[in-house]
Amino acid sequence: MSKMLSKMLEEIRQQPAAIERTLRSALPEARKLRRRCEEKRPQLVVLAARGTSDNAALFGRYLIEIATGIPVSLAAPSVSTLYGSSLSLAHAMAVGISQSGESTDTNLVIERAREAGAFTIGITNEARSALAGIPDQAFLVRAGKEKSVAATKTYTGQLLVLYLIAWALGAPFQVEDLQRIADSAAAALKLEDAIRLRAERYRFMERALVVARGLNYANAFEFALKLKETCYVMAEGFSGADLLHGPIAMVESSFPAFLFAPSGVTWPGQRELLGKLAQLKADTMTVTDRGNREAARHGNSLMIPAKLPDLYTPIPYIVPAQLFAACLAEIKGLDPDRPRTLSKITRTL
Amino acid sequence: MSKMLSKMLEEIRQQPAAIERTLRSALPEARKLRRRCEEKRPQLVVLAARGTSDNAALFGRYLIEIATGIPVSLAAPSVSTLYGSSLSLAHAMAVGISQSGESTDTNLVIERAREAGAFTIGITNEARSALAGIPDQAFLVRAGKEKSVAATKTYTGQLLVLYLIAWALGAPFQVEDLQRIADSAAAALKLEDAIRLRAERYRFMERALVVARGLNYANAFEFALKLKETCYVMAEGFSGADLLHGPIAMVESSFPAFLFAPSGVTWPGQRELLGKLAQLKADTMTVTDRGNREAARHGNSLMIPAKLPDLYTPIPYIVPAQLFAACLAEIKGLDPDRPRTLSKITRTL
Repeated sequence: MSKMLSKMLEEIRQQPAAIERTLRSALPEARKLRRRCEEKRPQLVVLAARGTSDNAALFGRYLIEIATGIPVSLAAPSVSTLYGSSLSLAHAMAVGISQSGESTDTNLVIERAREAGAFTIGITNEARSALAGIPDQAFLVRAGKEKSVAATKTYTGQLLVLYLIAWALGAPFQVEDLQRIADSAAAALKLEDAIRLRAERYRFMERALVVARGLNYANAFEFALKLKETCYVMAEGFSGADLLHGPIAMVESSFPAFLFAPSGVTWPGQRELLGKLAQLKADTMTVTDRGNREAARHGNSLMIPAKLPDLYTPIPYIVPAQLFAACLAEIKGLDPDRPRTLSKITRTL
Repeated sequence: MSKMLSKMLEEIRQQPAAIERTLRSALPEARKLRRRCEEKRPQLVVLAARGTSDNAALFGRYLIEIATGIPVSLAAPSVSTLYGSSLSLAHAMAVGISQSGESTDTNLVIERAREAGAFTIGITNEARSALAGIPDQAFLVRAGKEKSVAATKTYTGQLLVLYLIAWALGAPFQVEDLQRIADSAAAALKLEDAIRLRAERYRFMERALVVARGLNYANAFEFALKLKETCYVMAEGFSGADLLHGPIAMVESSFPAFLFAPSGVTWPGQRELLGKLAQLKADTMTVTDRGNREAARHGNSLMIPAKLPDLYTPIPYIVPAQLFAACLAEIKGLDPDRPRTLSKITRTL
C-alpha cells in the first residue's frame, strides 16, 4: 500500500524485541526484589495507574493473586488526591505504573504510600521521570520512545515487568518461561495480513463488547480502550460473569462481541457464553491459539499459530487486538497516532 | 396515565421506608461489629459481589478507605472459583454482598476467605439464604421482596449497610447523620414528574457516558447498568480522570453524557470536565443538589431539592438516575421489570 505506516502499527511490530530487551534489563532488579521479599513478604500489594497502564495493573492484580496468594488492591487515586485520606499500608508493597512516569495522581499515590511505610516500586518507560525517582525501586520498560498516543509496546512491556514482580513475590514460574513470551508475541504478529482483511467487515461498527475472564480480563479492557481511542467505537470490557448479571440484556441480533478464549480454566465459561451469544444472534469473534482448537468451531476466530498455556497468553493475546484496532482505524480513515482530543501525557488528580 | 406502574418504579418509591427499616434493624449488628473491630482492627477489607451488588461494593471501597484509612480490595472471584488460589487473608475482613444471597461465586469467595482466617460478613436481602448463614456475621437489607429484575431498593439498602460497616470500622460519622439519608432519598423522589418529562428527549439515545468521582463513582456504574438492563442503551461508567486518559476521544457532537455533580472535593474536576464536554458539543446532564448551585449553570441538571454534603450524596443521587431509567424504559415501550435475557438470580462462577 502507498499509505504511510502508522506509528501505532510500527510500535505493535516492535513488541517482541521490546519484550526481550525489557526482560534482560529488568531481571537483575527482579532478583534484588526477590531477595527483599524472601526476607519480608508483603501482606498486600497496591497497584496504582491510569489509562492503558491501569489495564496493565488489572492484569497484575490477577497474576499476583493467582500465582502468589498475596491479596491485591487497585488504588482508587481520588482517595488520596481529592479526599486526602492516608491509608494504613505499613505491611504493603505499592506499585505505580505509568508510561511517561509523570502521571500526577499515580505519583501522588506512591508518595503517600511511601509515607505510610509501604515499600514502593515504579514501572515506567522513562528513566528520568518522577516515577523512576520517587519509589524505593524502579523497573524500566525498555520499549524505546512510544510515539503513538495509543499505547501498545509499553503495555506489553508493563505486563512483562509484572510477571517479574510476581516472580519476585514467589510465583512458581521460571525465568525461561518468560523468555518464550517474545516468541509468542512474534507468532501473534503473523496474523497482521489476515486481520487487515478481516477488519474491513467492521467499517461501520459503532459499539462492541469485549469479554474475558481471569488473566485475560485486563486485555478485554485494553482492547476496548484501543477501539475507543483509535476507532471511536463505544466498546466496553466485561468479565463473562458480570455480563450475565445485567449487561447482556443489551445484546440484540448482530451485536458485535469479541472474546478472549485461551484453553484452560476460563474456557468452559467462555464456551457457554459463546453459545448464549449465538442464541441471541450476536456477531462474535474470538482471539485464541492452537492450544484451543475448540474455539475455532464457534464462528470467527483469530488463532495465534502457537500452542500457549493460559498463564502466558495475556501478552500474545493483546497483539491481534492491537492490530485489529490499528487496521480498523486505517480503514476508517482515522489517524491512530493522534486521536482527537488526546495528548500523550495526561495529568489528572 | 392508564398504564400500569412498573414494579421498578414502585420499588424506587419504597426506598425511603426501606432505608429507615434497614437502618433500625441493622444498628444492633453494627454495634456488635464495632465492639469487635475495636478489639481487633482488620488490616484489609475484601468486598465480593456481582452486578448491582458489585456497584454497592465499589461504593464501599471508596467509603471505607476514605473514612477509615483501611485499605480495601474488590475481590476478583475467578481467582478463587476458576484458578482455585487461596489468598493470605488472616488479618482481613471479607464482606460478601448479594440481593438473593445465592450468588454461587460470591458465596465461594466468602467461604474461602473464612477458611483463610478472615472475619466474614454477609449483606443480603434474604434471611434464609446461604450468604446469611455462611459468614461470621450477617446484615439484612430490609427492603422487602424485590420483584423487578432491575435492582433499586436493594442497592440503596446495601449502601446504607456499608455506611454502618464503615462506622463499625471507626469512620467518624454519627448514627444521626445516617438517619437523615432516608429524608434525602425522599427529597430526590420529588423529581419524578420532572424526570418523566425530561426523559422523552432521550427516546432514541443508543449510547451514553456516565461520569463521577470518588464516593459517587459507583453510582456512575450503577446508572450505566440500569440504562443497559432496562433501556438497552450502551452506557458506560467512568471516573472523570480515566475518561481523559483515552475514552474521551469517542466523544463527538451530541454525544450524551451524564455527570454526578455534588459540591465538595470532586466538583472542581467535574466542572472542568463539563467545560471540556461543552467544547466538544456533547449533550450533558448533571445530577446535583441545592448545595451546588454552580452545577445548574452548566446546562441541563436534575437538582435534588435539599442541601447535601458530599459524604451523604450517594444514596439520594442514585434515585434520579433510577427514575430516569424507569421512565425512559416506559417511553421506549420496554418492560423494566423483565429485561430480555435476564432472570432475577444469576448463578456464575
